[in-house]
Amino acid sequence: MVGWWRNVSTKVRHRMKEETEKLPIIRVTERGRSRLEDVVVREFSLTIILNKQELVTLLCSPSGLQNLAVGFLLSEGLIKGKDDIRKLVVDDQRGVVEVETGEGSGFVSQPPSRRLVTSGGGRGALMGSTPAKVESDIEISAHEVFALMDEFIQCSQVFRLTGGVHSAALCNTGNIIVFSEDIGRHNAIDKIFGQCVLEDIPTEGRLIITSGRVSSEILLKVARRNVPLLISKAAPTSLGVKLASDLGVTLIGFARGKRMNIYTHERRLRGG
Amino acid sequence: MVGWWRNVSTKVRHRMKEETEKLPIIRVTERGRSRLEDVVVREFSLTIILNKQELVTLLCSPSGLQNLAVGFLLSEGLIKGKDDIRKLVVDDQRGVVEVETGEGSGFVSQPPSRRLVTSGGGRGALMGSTPAKVESDIEISAHEVFALMDEFIQCSQVFRLTGGVHSAALCNTGNIIVFSEDIGRHNAIDKIFGQCVLEDIPTEGRLIITSGRVSSEILLKVARRNVPLLISKAAPTSLGVKLASDLGVTLIGFARGKRMNIYTHERRLRGG
Repeated sequence: MVGWWRNVSTKVRHRMKEETEKLPIIRVTERGRSRLEDVVVREFSLTIILNKQELVTLLCSPSGLQNLAVGFLLSEGLIKGKDDIRKLVVDDQRGVVEVETGEGSGFVSQPPSRRLVTSGGGRGALMGSTPAKVESDIEISAHEVFALMDEFIQCSQVFRLTGGVHSAALCNTGNIIVFSEDIGRHNAIDKIFGQCVLEDIPTEGRLIITSGRVSSEILLKVARRNVPLLISKAAPTSLGVKLASDLGVTLIGFARGKRMNIYTHERRLRGG
Repeated sequence: MVGWWRNVSTKVRHRMKEETEKLPIIRVTERGRSRLEDVVVREFSLTIILNKQELVTLLCSPSGLQNLAVGFLLSEGLIKGKDDIRKLVVDDQRGVVEVETGEGSGFVSQPPSRRLVTSGGGRGALMGSTPAKVESDIEISAHEVFALMDEFIQCSQVFRLTGGVHSAALCNTGNIIVFSEDIGRHNAIDKIFGQCVLEDIPTEGRLIITSGRVSSEILLKVARRNVPLLISKAAPTSLGVKLASDLGVTLIGFARGKRMNIYTHERRLRGG
């Protein structure tokens, strides 16, 4: 990693500084634990104000905000090209882009009345109330995490066949209790919690495993159901880590093979 | 693959039949092309009607629809538990779930007035008008695709450091012209198109490369900008493939190392 970093241009280094954040983590392998600094991707919140009306808040990386705002309006069919833009002002401190379109362009400033949520997600998670801190004395060993991840990967049959879905599971420290797959990482977790509610399966004091990245809305979803431990095969975002820290959730990322990173509340990982 | 399939239980086979679809594809390696059947994940559209008002349309996998609807309402804070649900009827032919909540529960049936789009996406892509068929005589060789993918992966510096972002690029057959990264696969592509519009960079007759899965809304986004060739490192969904076929877009998936799958309009791939 260090040798590779030396070859990176100044421009790219600047972009990385903007888009990433260094955090202290604990890396766990079969040989034990080590404290080190890791780099996680920053998660930024950008509100687009179109013709003085709030249109949308996008969770994104904090670069190319002007390009993102214009691209979003194009994709939504709210502008057709550059000529439709009369004003475009980015305030990256407040996380706001103000856009004004020409009066003659005939585009309304109203957001669409129907709401469509794609396979990638797109939920109002941040709009709800912040959940209470998760209190739980549950403990798990690294060995148990590795065994659960093995079982989790065994369960992911559709993924193995198509490479196109995310998986999620509710577990106790020894077994998978509920498993689901969906093309959306949000949906896979919602299916778990929906089934738990319908079948009276408790979630408190249990674990969620996800194949997907842990962004802020995934963390909030899990904390709302009082789940103290979230294990991901993939990476967390900076805001995911911050919320895990604030809400008392033990967050484990990059749980692959016999290794993992602990980002927050390592007290729930038993052993040395 | 075949040996593994034999060990799969009847229940899992049934789920896979429901969640996946077999399609004819062309696999390209350095040794040439072969026609074969591949399995892609199905993309399904589920509309949740809450207290007789349309709340949201989710793009999802077509299983566990009842669990998904309940989990979504929980995550959005629109119900608190099973007791809030008075009626729950799934119509999987129409792709509709009707939910009625108790009068005393005090939850409104109005969708939130502000719209939040998470890093995963959540756009109104399917609500816009269907774009016109993309007409373009551009041709590319397998060798050129492999070379572009190499360059694309070299550019993905933030991904290499964090494992937490998606990348997208606009290219011609020889070079990357615009490159972007974002925690959301939709955002990465929107940033490309936004920059192209602001800097008068044409997109017609060019290629888009994405690190992310190709679902229907990604395909629509690309077709709207008249891009005839979409190359993904990852998997497409069934609806992504169908739209590519209908809209005249050459869709290439699993472009990794010296191999790729061609899903639609293979005429743009030069050579035998």
